[in-house]
Amino acid sequence: MAGADIGLIGLAVMGQNLALNMDDHGFRVAVYNRTTDKVDGFLAGPAAGTQILGAHSLAELVAALSLPRKVMLMVRAGEAVDAFIEALIPLLGPGDVIIDGGNSHFPDSTRRTQALAERGILFVGAGVSGGEEGARHGPSIMPGGNPAAWPLVQDIFQAIAAHVDGIPCCHWVGPDGAGHYVKMVHNGIEYGDMQLIAEAYALMRDGLNLSVDEIQAVFARWNNGALDSYLIDITAQILKFRDIDGEPLIDKIQDKAAQKGTGKWAAVSALDLGIPLTLIGEAVFARCLSAMKDERVRASLILPEERLSFKADPEAFVHHIHDALYASKICSYAQGYMLMREAAREYGWRLDLGDVALMWRGGCIIRSRFLSDIKAAYDRDPALENLLQDSFFRGELDTALRGWRKAAAMAVGLGIPAPAITSALAFFDGYRCARLPADLIQAQRDFFGAHTYERVDAEPGERFHTDWTGSGGPAASTAYEV
Amino acid sequence: MAGADIGLIGLAVMGQNLALNMDDHGFRVAVYNRTTDKVDGFLAGPAAGTQILGAHSLAELVAALSLPRKVMLMVRAGEAVDAFIEALIPLLGPGDVIIDGGNSHFPDSTRRTQALAERGILFVGAGVSGGEEGARHGPSIMPGGNPAAWPLVQDIFQAIAAHVDGIPCCHWVGPDGAGHYVKMVHNGIEYGDMQLIAEAYALMRDGLNLSVDEIQAVFARWNNGALDSYLIDITAQILKFRDIDGEPLIDKIQDKAAQKGTGKWAAVSALDLGIPLTLIGEAVFARCLSAMKDERVRASLILPEERLSFKADPEAFVHHIHDALYASKICSYAQGYMLMREAAREYGWRLDLGDVALMWRGGCIIRSRFLSDIKAAYDRDPALENLLQDSFFRGELDTALRGWRKAAAMAVGLGIPAPAITSALAFFDGYRCARLPADLIQAQRDFFGAHTYERVDAEPGERFHTDWTGSGGPAASTAYEV
Repeated sequence: MAGADIGLIGLAVMGQNLALNMDDHGFRVAVYNRTTDKVDGFLAGPAAGTQILGAHSLAELVAALSLPRKVMLMVRAGEAVDAFIEALIPLLGPGDVIIDGGNSHFPDSTRRTQALAERGILFVGAGVSGGEEGARHGPSIMPGGNPAAWPLVQDIFQAIAAHVDGIPCCHWVGPDGAGHYVKMVHNGIEYGDMQLIAEAYALMRDGLNLSVDEIQAVFARWNNGALDSYLIDITAQILKFRDIDGEPLIDKIQDKAAQKGTGKWAAVSALDLGIPLTLIGEAVFARCLSAMKDERVRASLILPEERLSFKADPEAFVHHIHDALYASKICSYAQGYMLMREAAREYGWRLDLGDVALMWRGGCIIRSRFLSDIKAAYDRDPALENLLQDSFFRGELDTALRGWRKAAAMAVGLGIPAPAITSALAFFDGYRCARLPADLIQAQRDFFGAHTYERVDAEPGERFHTDWTGSGGPAASTAYEV
Repeated sequence: MAGADIGLIGLAVMGQNLALNMDDHGFRVAVYNRTTDKVDGFLAGPAAGTQILGAHSLAELVAALSLPRKVMLMVRAGEAVDAFIEALIPLLGPGDVIIDGGNSHFPDSTRRTQALAERGILFVGAGVSGGEEGARHGPSIMPGGNPAAWPLVQDIFQAIAAHVDGIPCCHWVGPDGAGHYVKMVHNGIEYGDMQLIAEAYALMRDGLNLSVDEIQAVFARWNNGALDSYLIDITAQILKFRDIDGEPLIDKIQDKAAQKGTGKWAAVSALDLGIPLTLIGEAVFARCLSAMKDERVRASLILPEERLSFKADPEAFVHHIHDALYASKICSYAQGYMLMREAAREYGWRLDLGDVALMWRGGCIIRSRFLSDIKAAYDRDPALENLLQDSFFRGELDTALRGWRKAAAMAVGLGIPAPAITSALAFFDGYRCARLPADLIQAQRDFFGAHTYERVDAEPGERFHTDWTGSGGPAASTAYEV
């Protein structure tokens, strides 16, 4: 039992499916799981009839691999990854590769890349998206880490990844934690897309009073247009699904959204880097609010809203809601790309933003026709400052703008919460606003804290301080400097 | 030279003013600054004629203090605080007190409290707000840390703090980093208040086309009503201020808001604790967007908005904007209090939320009449679940709601970015919404990741998984577990 192309550790659903996917493509895979019963169960079950090899110890797994050895971890992000890396180090040698395919936080991948490089081991932090179906039949894979590892894993990764127009949804992202960073932004965008769909659903359900079937038909129709995407598609499938009593299953599902943290990481990184990732931030917070179900129910009793009745053409408003969803989505991706651009600058990565769109075009949860439009924008101008400045998206926004405003006004008028749609609109209006009211904020900061300000008629960087009351000192603040 | 009541390190504007404030109240203060020229300049200048003692070394400073010694750091948060603590440790003994009055991050204060306790030194992390004026004449002081230190510093702190109705704006907050945590939330709320005022200003300036003088008169009027507060007051003063050419100075100030990080910390903590702190989040991001001035100017040229003309009664809309600002402010404080409640639960602090309102009522940047209303709410019900559920605030929101919606609709309709006002409204509508569309999000998560969901007709905590397509496995995801 030797000569396997890759070893895979962790046989939960993602790990099992990746192993089967690799086997489909002719790679010889050895698998190991800490609870070794799972190895036997997998080989006797889903892996029956494949070339997959089982190992009952790490040593056995490593012994089964051809050189240079490649071991992929599909275990819970955090301590488990470090524990397996520690256990693998004495079994591996220089030039061998450890791949972490879990949802790790990017600073961990940076740390691991550097620590393993000191021992000659090549680390890859690879974001893998697509859920169980994607893992089985072609995920989006976003590998980063030690660049020397890429030629060793490229064949396997690009073979098992999803393909769109013959192009694999897997490219080398960049050094250190770049792969997991891009995966984190992907997940944040996924939060945003899901929140936008939920808001469109609420506007139709609670604003237009459409039935589940009517809303289902709208989503099915939207999936043939600019919104064509996996998430819109499964929304239509979900709304079609009946419970055993024949009623729509969606109406039996509790409205408490859970989360696993990667959307939050994106918002935190945006705060750290000073990038206005407002839509994803609102989406994460909307999940937090939804989780406070009991308090919301109590509040609904003591803060009852007259649900204002809607007095306009529902057909026209379905179009407005479509435009609001589409335009907000463009803004969300623009924000995500702003974040990646800034992260690349901050961490010294050379991210190819067009390649990122190619990776997300298939296999992953946010796959969509839309991502080809993003790739096309970066093909038109690789140095594009912002997606919102691209000629195609400018045209799309121009067309959608009127409906977007009407849908947002409907939400604020009727009392239907649409935080992502309204936040995106405020961002868009702020982004193209040459003069924001932040002059007043700077004046306030100078008033109470002598923090100084710049003037519109002076050089950028030149600082001014005003003694606003006549009683303050003339000196600008040096804050807490000693 | 012995017997000083307290030693103060760091003679930037805040440190100087605190020392003078202490001296005013009869405390004998010894001061030290790393650049000792500043000590001499301070004694010969602002401190001339006071009892303040100068020290030219830490040893000299410590020697001047009566027992137990109390040393207050007013130095830049971060490494400087640790460096001074390290330098002070050999000079101090058990029972002595080190106070950090800077804008430190609360986990640092937790760490320092615990590390110093092991050496018998009592650490206090005290948030101090009020800018240079507050420090000089009465700041808000939020002390936390080692509870044994409180009886030793209470007299000085409560004497120099602002007083409202005879009550000092300084109470013991709680253990470890509780004081700096509350200060962090204060700063986040300050960001929110400033953003709300800026949005109201923009709606009047760019929506109603009011002149600076007209807007000035509105803010001056508002300062006599429910919005009566320091920030509204200084806004009126700022808008009155003329440049040397006789024009309003505000129009010469660049609209690039800066920030120093504590607003960001509040948003990050909210993301960590799962509390929807949306308004502060939007306020922080709005500053980030404002700082991208050059890109905004470029974008304004290629994404020009027809500024839609406003066709309604400006007088009536000034009232709507007032109501939007007031109601949004209530939501922002409610969110901040939600965050403090959750932090207390997470970190095991017993925060008295009414006391927090008392501390913020005077001295600090967010001081206002409003905070007495918050104190009254917690007096009515110390176990109040949420400020939005209090009878007084319910009434205020009910009155403001119609105008709030109109102002928000005006913003989204005219294209004037008002992210904080619209975000607050979406939060309010979501908070009292018994059924959010998060059922769809849970269905999607179960569809693509087998993440399971709860049912409305089953016990909370009971998890369900659906094989939505008929082709997935029956098992719920165990994600990456091994």
